[in-house]
Amino acid sequence: MEELVTVALDVMGGDHAPSEIIKGGVEAVNASKQVKVLMVGDEVKIKEELDKYTCDRERIEIVPTTEVISNNEAPVNAIRNKTDSSIVRCQRLVKKGEADAMVSAGSTGALLAGGQLIVGRVKGVHRPPLAPLIPTAKGFSLLIDCGANVDARAVHLLQFAQIGTIYMEDIIGVKNPKVAIVNIGAEEEKGNQLVKEAYPLLKECPSIHFIGSIEARDIPSGEADIIVCDAFVGNVILKLYEGVGNTLIHKIKVSMMSSLRSKIGGWLVKPALKATVKEFDASEYGGVPLLGLKGLVVKAHGSSSAQEIQRAIIQCITFKQQNINVRIEEVLNQ
Amino acid sequence: MEELVTVALDVMGGDHAPSEIIKGGVEAVNASKQVKVLMVGDEVKIKEELDKYTCDRERIEIVPTTEVISNNEAPVNAIRNKTDSSIVRCQRLVKKGEADAMVSAGSTGALLAGGQLIVGRVKGVHRPPLAPLIPTAKGFSLLIDCGANVDARAVHLLQFAQIGTIYMEDIIGVKNPKVAIVNIGAEEEKGNQLVKEAYPLLKECPSIHFIGSIEARDIPSGEADIIVCDAFVGNVILKLYEGVGNTLIHKIKVSMMSSLRSKIGGWLVKPALKATVKEFDASEYGGVPLLGLKGLVVKAHGSSSAQEIQRAIIQCITFKQQNINVRIEEVLNQ
Repeated sequence: MEELVTVALDVMGGDHAPSEIIKGGVEAVNASKQVKVLMVGDEVKIKEELDKYTCDRERIEIVPTTEVISNNEAPVNAIRNKTDSSIVRCQRLVKKGEADAMVSAGSTGALLAGGQLIVGRVKGVHRPPLAPLIPTAKGFSLLIDCGANVDARAVHLLQFAQIGTIYMEDIIGVKNPKVAIVNIGAEEEKGNQLVKEAYPLLKECPSIHFIGSIEARDIPSGEADIIVCDAFVGNVILKLYEGVGNTLIHKIKVSMMSSLRSKIGGWLVKPALKATVKEFDASEYGGVPLLGLKGLVVKAHGSSSAQEIQRAIIQCITFKQQNINVRIEEVLNQ
Repeated sequence: MEELVTVALDVMGGDHAPSEIIKGGVEAVNASKQVKVLMVGDEVKIKEELDKYTCDRERIEIVPTTEVISNNEAPVNAIRNKTDSSIVRCQRLVKKGEADAMVSAGSTGALLAGGQLIVGRVKGVHRPPLAPLIPTAKGFSLLIDCGANVDARAVHLLQFAQIGTIYMEDIIGVKNPKVAIVNIGAEEEKGNQLVKEAYPLLKECPSIHFIGSIEARDIPSGEADIIVCDAFVGNVILKLYEGVGNTLIHKIKVSMMSSLRSKIGGWLVKPALKATVKEFDASEYGGVPLLGLKGLVVKAHGSSSAQEIQRAIIQCITFKQQNINVRIEEVLNQ
């Protein structure tokens, strides 16, 4: 029998918590016999929701907690004070080895703070980056860092490139992934202070395949597999992707209602259009791992549905099997 | 008779220089009797091109130059050394008052450097920002700064907000425009060092209508009229807008070719779709002014067609009529 992968699920985090999150946990257990889910949160609510579904209850366990960290709380304080919050409890389960991974759609800041304070960093890692896959014309690219660690230094960007390379090779299966740094021009001398300092470090690093600067215009065409930037810029890129996509799709839909001709046309193209829009939706790519921690912490989109939670939990199987932390530690401490 | 607005046109800058640029100049002269164009560049080429068109030659003058500044040159050096380049000559014409404005699709860096070194800043302006209008669901917003002045300080961001407010009120006609700062969360305590420092300055400034932070996700929906950020972030936003839009439209077009049904539908929606795409194309908004200079310098998109150049030249009429530099000087030196 295959070994179970135990995932601590923060059922209290996210716009649709707890019902959608619990449903996602149930769906994960039903989708894979390799998964065991620890439902961490309000016991009464969890029991109420679980009663609605049929599933293998032996692979579901309830971990009752009394507190919740909201998105508006200062992360470090929240992690220190709310010791019985669902996020803190999930991270402790990972730390103690009682869970192989945790998944949460809750506060990114708290997950990052707790990741460092509770789970702990892999030796040599300065700042564990949050690294989502974003859709491109060619497939997808890794955008690293999108966390809350703003005001990065050049050496952090170098680590993001190294960690991202290991992740893309071992987990995603992209051989010799191309690394580029976000810049405002293609030339080496362009950029802000941070980029100018990071550029030579990336250029000289033997463990990555650095291809130079990338302008934001070329990110969606998929010119690079790994897009390196500080978290502020990463956040802007990730969220603008979503914003431009949504607004443009909305405008296209409205334009299709503008005449009878376009209404009929709109009805005919709807299935094809829907598939394309889905393909280009960053949130479709499941959970986002916080890399470089001594355990797996996966952030799901705040607006995650049950399906997205299910997908994030299933992803944890690959993570566990490929245990990339050993390689991260090796590469960063060479 | 109305007073002529004299525009120095750098015919050597841009992907389609000189022919498309010269054509744009001719079209501007034909479109408005208020415009006179000084064609600055290679005399032989300008004459050759002009012979192709019918236009009022009395409102076109040739200013022969021998040098060209390319996009790859270090801007400050280029401005200092290539004194007979089309950009430097255009800026000198503005400086001496022989032209009311200049338009160039050439090197942004050189335009910015020359703007400061040759044309000169309005008293009190630290860094003249480049401020394009970007399309949103509600119309458009001003994105300020998108220039090459990276590593801004908090006081620069405050000035961008003040200058942007004057521009939106006087030139674009938006009353009491809403100002927001690009941030990675809505809460006041979030952000990188720069944003944390700029936030209170913006909040306390009486001459602007500050509404707080804006996440990149909400920029395309048009929540704010003026989007304040440092030039690195502004550049990423501007170019990603273009990149995501292009890639998404490309994917939609491909998807419409996927079946007979969607092909027919695609043909039916084509006119409506085309209009929407055009409406959401940042380059459709004409030239981008460099604000806060003692004269008008307008940057046209590098890939400008004749039509875009024509539009950028025509824009200069409003600029001249509304002479906003007096107000900028007043507000910044209060």
